[in-house]
Amino acid sequence: MTNTSASNINQQWRLAERPTGMLDESTFARHDEPLPTAGPGEILVRNCYLSVDPAMRGWLNDIPSYVPPVQIGAVMRAHTVGQVVESNHPRFTPGDFVSGPGDWQDYYVPRQEALSGHGDPGFAVTQVPPGAQPSWSLGVLGLTGLTAYFGLLDVGRPHPGDTVVVSGAAGATGSVVAQIAKIAGCRVIGIAGGEDKCRWLTDDLGLDAAIDYKSERVRRRLRELAPNGIDVFFDNVGGPILDAAIARIAQGGRVVLCGAISMYNATALPPGPATYVQLIGQRARMEGFIVFDYADQYDIATQRLFDWVNDGRLKVAEDIQEGFDNIPAALIGLYSGANLGKRVVHIADPPIA
Amino acid sequence: MTNTSASNINQQWRLAERPTGMLDESTFARHDEPLPTAGPGEILVRNCYLSVDPAMRGWLNDIPSYVPPVQIGAVMRAHTVGQVVESNHPRFTPGDFVSGPGDWQDYYVPRQEALSGHGDPGFAVTQVPPGAQPSWSLGVLGLTGLTAYFGLLDVGRPHPGDTVVVSGAAGATGSVVAQIAKIAGCRVIGIAGGEDKCRWLTDDLGLDAAIDYKSERVRRRLRELAPNGIDVFFDNVGGPILDAAIARIAQGGRVVLCGAISMYNATALPPGPATYVQLIGQRARMEGFIVFDYADQYDIATQRLFDWVNDGRLKVAEDIQEGFDNIPAALIGLYSGANLGKRVVHIADPPIA
Repeated sequence: MTNTSASNINQQWRLAERPTGMLDESTFARHDEPLPTAGPGEILVRNCYLSVDPAMRGWLNDIPSYVPPVQIGAVMRAHTVGQVVESNHPRFTPGDFVSGPGDWQDYYVPRQEALSGHGDPGFAVTQVPPGAQPSWSLGVLGLTGLTAYFGLLDVGRPHPGDTVVVSGAAGATGSVVAQIAKIAGCRVIGIAGGEDKCRWLTDDLGLDAAIDYKSERVRRRLRELAPNGIDVFFDNVGGPILDAAIARIAQGGRVVLCGAISMYNATALPPGPATYVQLIGQRARMEGFIVFDYADQYDIATQRLFDWVNDGRLKVAEDIQEGFDNIPAALIGLYSGANLGKRVVHIADPPIA
Repeated sequence: MTNTSASNINQQWRLAERPTGMLDESTFARHDEPLPTAGPGEILVRNCYLSVDPAMRGWLNDIPSYVPPVQIGAVMRAHTVGQVVESNHPRFTPGDFVSGPGDWQDYYVPRQEALSGHGDPGFAVTQVPPGAQPSWSLGVLGLTGLTAYFGLLDVGRPHPGDTVVVSGAAGATGSVVAQIAKIAGCRVIGIAGGEDKCRWLTDDLGLDAAIDYKSERVRRRLRELAPNGIDVFFDNVGGPILDAAIARIAQGGRVVLCGAISMYNATALPPGPATYVQLIGQRARMEGFIVFDYADQYDIATQRLFDWVNDGRLKVAEDIQEGFDNIPAALIGLYSGANLGKRVVHIADPPIA
């Protein structure tokens, strides 16, 4: 389906209805618009890769959160990487690869504040670093990598020698967190679903151990693998895995709340972690964060991440899906753990060679 | 029953059996021992007031925690205030009032490390400050006041103008927390059970508002009273009240986990706070602490608390029960909220005038 759209059509996926529980094929609807044009001071971007992220589920509820809800009838909000095809802005030249708030569509004209960097830091248009694969700007060099970096290092504050446990360790954020924790000198245990993912974590990413929550008893394995307790637990999952990890938190331990993928599609709020009382006796802390708050440090963090990729210390794990039609299915698949690493959807090759 | 024990008998309450669920009259058993004697370098203390504390419930479970479990057959562990009646130690003179690890009994001979201050900081023998009522050393000037002080100021870190919500606000720790938060320039809302307690919080302690969880809907009242969210929630209670408070946590808010009295007697672990996911979007933190970790700052904090008492800014709220026979019942009453302020049991007047 790649590159087949007529050049004067901008294909879009729009929010058709607010989902109850799990997303399905009626959640989003296809829509065709005329191509937008770049006015004075503006640019036109051809999207090549679109992001799908577990957190998107939360944006579909009509509840104020760290970002406003996506409105019914609006193009689905998403980060994208694309190529500048027209530019009336001094910072951009046709052919540049940029990441930004491109949404689930073929083309977009970023708003002025996204170009100037004065708007919401999570939605700025930025150049893909020279030498990087464009798609990396949605993963290891984008908000995913930055989320892993600041969540682990600033909220989790690992010390060398600490035992760090990561849930969703084979996912987009988790796989970067686990590798940064290794770089920081920690003992790292990943929790993931399935033997293949677990083998990948230990054999390819170099984790010290992995727990397959689908076939193993997580509490018992954590007891065996973290006999002195967990110093940092980085949670992408919530539910019983969070409960099990708090039950083994070490004195002064830190629980980093990044996400709760097990709960995003629940129709009623599932019970919280019953073991939270352990935080008292263990003088431990559980803390949430939003990566946007670190916008003033994005540049240095991106550079560090890129250095580690270039050194071979940080492996890039991408799960690239194909085709504009497949975007909703690519998102839905995240909630059953279909992905290994960061999932993106490739919708077009760059038009300018 | 006060002062009627024969002078050569040391009455004790010992742990008779590990409770399942709520404590009852078979949990503790009376026992008489001969009077202990003070050896070289030791002192003999006549206990006058004994402490009863909600956290004691946790010490009765056979589970390692921030203190070791009380063993079956052992005298029940408790802080006490008493008078030195014999001294072979240079720091103490007969007639001195001291607080320390006196347990539920008439007399005790503290261990050497409790006298020297080199043992566990929670179990040191210390002089009651001159000018203070001896019983205050179990409450506002003891571990209760110190718990309120460090939990609120060091973990909660309130700023002037913050909205601070305290659960168990009419209890021993909560009533001190709420008053320190007022001294720190905060808007303070207390949650307590019953109209009388709520009136006492606003009219006597000067809180800005109080919520009666027995007759009011806590979530709705928090929405009305904290329209911009809760900056600091100091939790002594757990359960649905914790859930309701997290649901309204402000951006960057702090949940101080001090206790969970609603859960201490549960036979199965109740569900945790389902609203914990709010901590992510609000970049909020939930953190436990144990007062013993602040032992090196006890002196300055006790002085501050005493200054505030002397200034009339911190009201001392004591609930004094009478008689050695009534100690277990005094403890059990805490779990139904029978107390207003810090409950202690008076078992004897000081023998030395």
